[in-house]
Amino acid sequence: MTITINLCADIGESFGAYKIGDDDAMLGIVRSASIACGFHGGDPVTMHDVVKRAKEAGVSIGCHPSYNDLWGFGRRRIDTSADHLEYMIAYQIGALQAFAAYVGEKVTHLQPHGAVANVAAEQEDAAMAIGRAIRSVDRGIIYVAPPDSWMEKAGRKLGLRVALEGFCDRSYDDDGKIASRKLPGAVHTDPDVVASQVLRIALHGEVVSRTGKVLPQRVHTLCVHGDEPTGVATAKAARKALEDAGVKIVTLPEMNFE
Amino acid sequence: MTITINLCADIGESFGAYKIGDDDAMLGIVRSASIACGFHGGDPVTMHDVVKRAKEAGVSIGCHPSYNDLWGFGRRRIDTSADHLEYMIAYQIGALQAFAAYVGEKVTHLQPHGAVANVAAEQEDAAMAIGRAIRSVDRGIIYVAPPDSWMEKAGRKLGLRVALEGFCDRSYDDDGKIASRKLPGAVHTDPDVVASQVLRIALHGEVVSRTGKVLPQRVHTLCVHGDEPTGVATAKAARKALEDAGVKIVTLPEMNFE
Amino acid sequence: MTITINLCADIGESFGAYKIGDDDAMLGIVRSASIACGFHGGDPVTMHDVVKRAKEAGVSIGCHPSYNDLWGFGRRRIDTSADHLEYMIAYQIGALQAFAAYVGEKVTHLQPHGAVANVAAEQEDAAMAIGRAIRSVDRGIIYVAPPDSWMEKAGRKLGLRVALEGFCDRSYDDDGKIASRKLPGAVHTDPDVVASQVLRIALHGEVVSRTGKVLPQRVHTLCVHGDEPTGVATAKAARKALEDAGVKIVTLPEMNFE
Amino acid sequence: MTITINLCADIGESFGAYKIGDDDAMLGIVRSASIACGFHGGDPVTMHDVVKRAKEAGVSIGCHPSYNDLWGFGRRRIDTSADHLEYMIAYQIGALQAFAAYVGEKVTHLQPHGAVANVAAEQEDAAMAIGRAIRSVDRGIIYVAPPDSWMEKAGRKLGLRVALEGFCDRSYDDDGKIASRKLPGAVHTDPDVVASQVLRIALHGEVVSRTGKVLPQRVHTLCVHGDEPTGVATAKAARKALEDAGVKIVTLPEMNFE
Repeated sequence: MTITINLCADIGESFGAYKIGDDDAMLGIVRSASIACGFHGGDPVTMHDVVKRAKEAGVSIGCHPSYNDLWGFGRRRIDTSADHLEYMIAYQIGALQAFAAYVGEKVTHLQPHGAVANVAAEQEDAAMAIGRAIRSVDRGIIYVAPPDSWMEKAGRKLGLRVALEGFCDRSYDDDGKIASRKLPGAVHTDPDVVASQVLRIALHGEVVSRTGKVLPQRVHTLCVHGDEPTGVATAKAARKALEDAGVKIVTLPEMNFE
Repeated sequence: MTITINLCADIGESFGAYKIGDDDAMLGIVRSASIACGFHGGDPVTMHDVVKRAKEAGVSIGCHPSYNDLWGFGRRRIDTSADHLEYMIAYQIGALQAFAAYVGEKVTHLQPHGAVANVAAEQEDAAMAIGRAIRSVDRGIIYVAPPDSWMEKAGRKLGLRVALEGFCDRSYDDDGKIASRKLPGAVHTDPDVVASQVLRIALHGEVVSRTGKVLPQRVHTLCVHGDEPTGVATAKAARKALEDAGVKIVTLPEMNFE
Repeated sequence: MTITINLCADIGESFGAYKIGDDDAMLGIVRSASIACGFHGGDPVTMHDVVKRAKEAGVSIGCHPSYNDLWGFGRRRIDTSADHLEYMIAYQIGALQAFAAYVGEKVTHLQPHGAVANVAAEQEDAAMAIGRAIRSVDRGIIYVAPPDSWMEKAGRKLGLRVALEGFCDRSYDDDGKIASRKLPGAVHTDPDVVASQVLRIALHGEVVSRTGKVLPQRVHTLCVHGDEPTGVATAKAARKALEDAGVKIVTLPEMNFE
Repeated sequence: MTITINLCADIGESFGAYKIGDDDAMLGIVRSASIACGFHGGDPVTMHDVVKRAKEAGVSIGCHPSYNDLWGFGRRRIDTSADHLEYMIAYQIGALQAFAAYVGEKVTHLQPHGAVANVAAEQEDAAMAIGRAIRSVDRGIIYVAPPDSWMEKAGRKLGLRVALEGFCDRSYDDDGKIASRKLPGAVHTDPDVVASQVLRIALHGEVVSRTGKVLPQRVHTLCVHGDEPTGVATAKAARKALEDAGVKIVTLPEMNFE
């Protein structure tokens, strides 16, 4: 039996004259892209361009919404009420859908960015707010969520398809959550470490924590951060390891979420 | 034979704690609304709220896009390339569509705001850029344009439905264009003047310029500015005058654009 | 012996076309003004205008810095590192100093706005960051702080002059802190209640909490919020009550902080 | 007799997670820096950091103000009234002065950025608005201006010191103005071309236009753009050429403007 998994990068985070990440290279490697929508990065021109290239590369299009915080690159928690958060997310979905319409595609998944992803993983009201935005704008959109997070629970409660996410390039704490960026070694930059973690997740449904603990980690999608300088190398290492092991890499909508 | 015309206000221009206009009152008077999309005014919470109330009031939903200029309220010309403008407009359409989806409606028209409306009336490349954004995101959206403007021409060239607009609350120059806001008397605040202008346009297809010249002015929609302090009184005066004269006021999609 | 106290309003919170508060009326009543600096409200034109009018009215000029959050009007907590906060505050002081220079005046106090004021009252690192910004840009600036807050402690530790603040228009919890805006009755809108609270603070150095507890509350300045619809009425009531009781109302720099 | 000239770069244009230019390398080469103030680039953290390093490197500190246009990197003309422009410039001067105060220095020059520099070179009202901002905030600040521009005239009319600027890295049209960025070869990337142009200006007070015409070009400061990928190489080439030719490179305040 062939194992299938998705490989996904967050891209499109450039803003005007400011460039972050090598989106073109990334689109040649991954099969799904979570695209910034102008709140922490990205702008209408970048979004149009990245969506067009994703279409050309056969990469499925996802929304990567954030708090409105360009200066903080969406990494600062902003104390936002659930309804305000919901409408901020809805706004970003809609904006990206416009560019998907340009190429005759749909936005097929949503993966929150940075601080809002952390908050929604931990807090039910934020997780539900994001889920309601998805349900109201297009209930066909897949909600990408960490396993056992409030996001997963919210997605299921709202009847949405949920894609569980693992990370190629981040180390894990003993509780199964990714370690804070502030810790040394939080971001894997060694391709061998990446390959090892990716294979452990894809083949065995488990991950080894920073302290060496083996944790269950069943996921549908493996994520890599496009804004890391080593992002492209990480994505390449992940893809090669998976392909060499006979794992089939598919787009998110091609995954089976039953 | 009954004359039909649309009455439309631009609303939803509040931003966070900052309130402009009396959107609720306006939604009880007009039949179509051009809703700000966060670039010169408006925010996700305001957009959600205004779209919901428009639905409840049976008012059709339109996009009121702008340059990204909150400080200048979209009234400053910004030297933007045609492709950048196109994607800015597309972004705003998509954002509003998300909130239309909340209430099971569609965005049915687009009316540019402020400086970008002035630029697009005068310059072919800007008018075409806006038209291409409409065509790419949803070619069913009606392009609201001043008669004989580049916007009208662009809309026709691109095969879009074009609604010609007249103004309840603005005086006209001899060339048939609305007079600059900088001129005294540019904005009509007297309900009798409003009623007179509205009837002249609706019943006779003409308008009297600031110098007294009678100009042809065939339009599908009569616009009132929601951010003017006298906006609600103007809208009421226009509606009453039209109804008293037996003119039927309909939503923009109900108009016949043949 | 004459009792002296300062009466201060936060003003200059309009932004472009968006108007909040009646700054002119307020400047005729208070003796000090805490002026928004463009991060939660205010803009260069508003700042210039308000500073000029403050000068004309003999009102002393203070800085009212905030998180960079126009949409949230500075009322949302943003998880900002201490050094980033420090430089954000310094930036806002400098911007206001430019307009003070226009009228040959100096910025003589700083009173944090909204969420950053709440955070700095509760957290030492934020309180110290603000204090360091003051010390580095102009150590003559008076640090306005709630009694017994981390802001008071930080100001003293850094050798700054500290003005303790009380509120004309806000109710107090039993711990001596102002009650959350989310609670009913958090904002006093009845001029008699305002007068009573102001007199109790100015004459007796105490305040009555929401539950009726009498709390010591020795302050140098009594604040009123300019963005409240009842702000001007509150300021008038406070001033009249103080003057009728023979209290001398002075600018903040005229107060004795020994 | 020794020839003296200033070498100046515009730096500090990074924003949050977005990095542009190699400010550290540039500060080791030039003697003055025009520092972005948050309107087209730059933020409080970047400004603090760059000013501190400039102080350490003995580089004089200048203000590089812009239209408020982060997305357009200050390169889009925005139709701004003269008084609004004046206060925007004043705001940015003040913000930078705060960071100069951190290191016991002053802002000693002002060089407008991008589109506002182009507009002020061509239009008297904009040039005067910038000059009035300087005069009101600190009349000791040197106004950096292209020779024969409205900026030069405005500076002289207002009694300000004016530093005439030439460019290391830009080609010139026959009218003595730098060629548009849209033209091929507008930016010199060949160090030999840079060296040749710099020497011609410094030693002979003239420049060779794109068509080969020799034009008088007496300047006090030679500028290099920090955001160009070749900026550091250009600055190095300029410095080496000048030093090899015995030209003394000094800070802007050390120049003689009589």
